[in-house]
Formats: sequence, structure tokens, C-alpha cells
Amino acid sequence: MRKSMAAALGALALSMGLIALAQTKPEDLIKYRRSAMFLVGANFGPLAAMAQGKRPYDKDAAIKHAGIVAYVSKLPVEGFAPGTDTGDTKAKPEIWQDLDDFKAKMDKMNQETAKLSQVAQNGDFETLKAQVGETGKACKACHDKYRNK
Amino acid sequence: MRKSMAAALGALALSMGLIALAQTKPEDLIKYRRSAMFLVGANFGPLAAMAQGKRPYDKDAAIKHAGIVAYVSKLPVEGFAPGTDTGDTKAKPEIWQDLDDFKAKMDKMNQETAKLSQVAQNGDFETLKAQVGETGKACKACHDKYRNK
Repeated sequence: MRKSMAAALGALALSMGLIALAQTKPEDLIKYRRSAMFLVGANFGPLAAMAQGKRPYDKDAAIKHAGIVAYVSKLPVEGFAPGTDTGDTKAKPEIWQDLDDFKAKMDKMNQETAKLSQVAQNGDFETLKAQVGETGKACKACHDKYRNK
Repeated sequence: MRKSMAAALGALALSMGLIALAQTKPEDLIKYRRSAMFLVGANFGPLAAMAQGKRPYDKDAAIKHAGIVAYVSKLPVEGFAPGTDTGDTKAKPEIWQDLDDFKAKMDKMNQETAKLSQVAQNGDFETLKAQVGETGKACKACHDKYRNK
């Protein structure tokens, strides 16, 4: 019984290409942070569109997207381990030369996305719009300094 | 003031390649679900390794990974919109021929991952191990039927 579960998990692990973060190859860590960033961007997009008047304000959609942004934006930082500065990445080497500053910028972004999620739940569009702007600034501060075009 | 925020968001949207889910190109929806699945797999991996005795049981790590699995595994379903059956995907066309069954399997998987997160917090390794097995089965049921190798 125990053995069959182990075998089933082994087969699943093979079929899914499961990785185990702490023992992970650099290319998988890069894929990890890029996957998380893609999800964040995909959910921030509709909020930015609402803030810009390109899409009607939808409270429920705003709550959903802001919640996902707040949660998933906490994930990428783990992917910036040492040795992940080369490969399929736009990350600049400066990240690892000033890791404290990089992590401070990530923290700031996480604070803004947490606030974004709270504000979305309150349902006041003007406040949301302002917080979308603040969140965008926090994203941009890091992208400008640490991300190649 | 309002104009400058809109301009800044516009620049950010361009630089990030922001997408807006409901109006999204099929290739971005595919990338959305694949990104979410990758994060799920990356966090399920360490749990499977613990369950298989390939990595020491670590309660805090188990809680963290199971929490991420439970949250992020709710995201992929939205990426399986009509018209996303071709492109850079292993999804079988059967998904859209029997969408109710597919969604039922996704729901089942979400129930198991929610339970996985609860069980991880309880901190009993044998219970966690059993639930890792149940979760793996729920993943595998869908992969076997709806995912090309």
C-alpha cells in the first residue's frame, strides 16, 4: 500500500517534471520567477485597464485580480537565488550585487499589492485607481533598475 | 496629475506586456495556465519528495508549499477558454468536448489541495503523506485523460 503510493507519486513526479525548489536547477528557478511574474502581470493588466478607463470598473473582478496579484507577487523573490543570473532571463546582474536593495524594492511592491487588495475590497473606485498607480510605481522602480528591456 | 498616472501606467503596461485576461489572446491564456501549473508542480515537488522519504519532513516548508499549491491550483482553469486548444500546449481537445467532466476533475483537485494545506498545518506527517497521495491521484486523473505526454 505504502509502496504503491510511492510508485504512483514517482510516476507523477516524472510526468509533471516536478521540481523541488531548494534543490532546483537554475533554469527552473528562472522559470519559477517568470511564471509568477507572468501571472502577476496578467492580473494587474485588467486593474490597470480599469484605472485608465479602458475597461469599465467591475468591483468583483477588481477584488479577484487584486487578490491574485497580492498573493502571487510574494512568490518570485525565491527564484532569484545565486547562480540564476544567466540563462533565459531579463534579470540584470546588479540584482545580486545589491541584493538588499533589490529585496527592499520587492518588499515595497508586496506592501503596495497587499494594500491594492484591501482597497479593491472597499469598492471605492477613486481609491483603487490611486492604489493601482502606487502599485505600478513599485513594479516600475524595480523593472527600471533591475530588468533588461 | 491624473494624466501623468495614466501615462505611467501605459508605459508600464507596454514594458510588462500586460495582458487583460477576459480580452486575452489564446497564446497568453495558454501561457497563463502553464505558468500556474508550473508553480503548482514546483511546490508539490518538495511535498512529494517528503512523502517518498527523499527529503526530510519539514513542517514549516510543508505548510508553505501546500499553501501555495492550494492557492495557485485554483488559477489554471480560467486559462482553458474556448479557442485555446491549439498552440504551445499539451492539452488534449477532449477537454472542450467534455468540459463538465474536465471542470469536475479540476474541482476535485482543488478540494484535495485545500485539504492538503489544512493537513500540512496540523503537522502530522503520516496524515500529510496520505493526503499527498490523494492529491497526486487527483492531478494524475486529469493528466492521464486530458494531457498529452
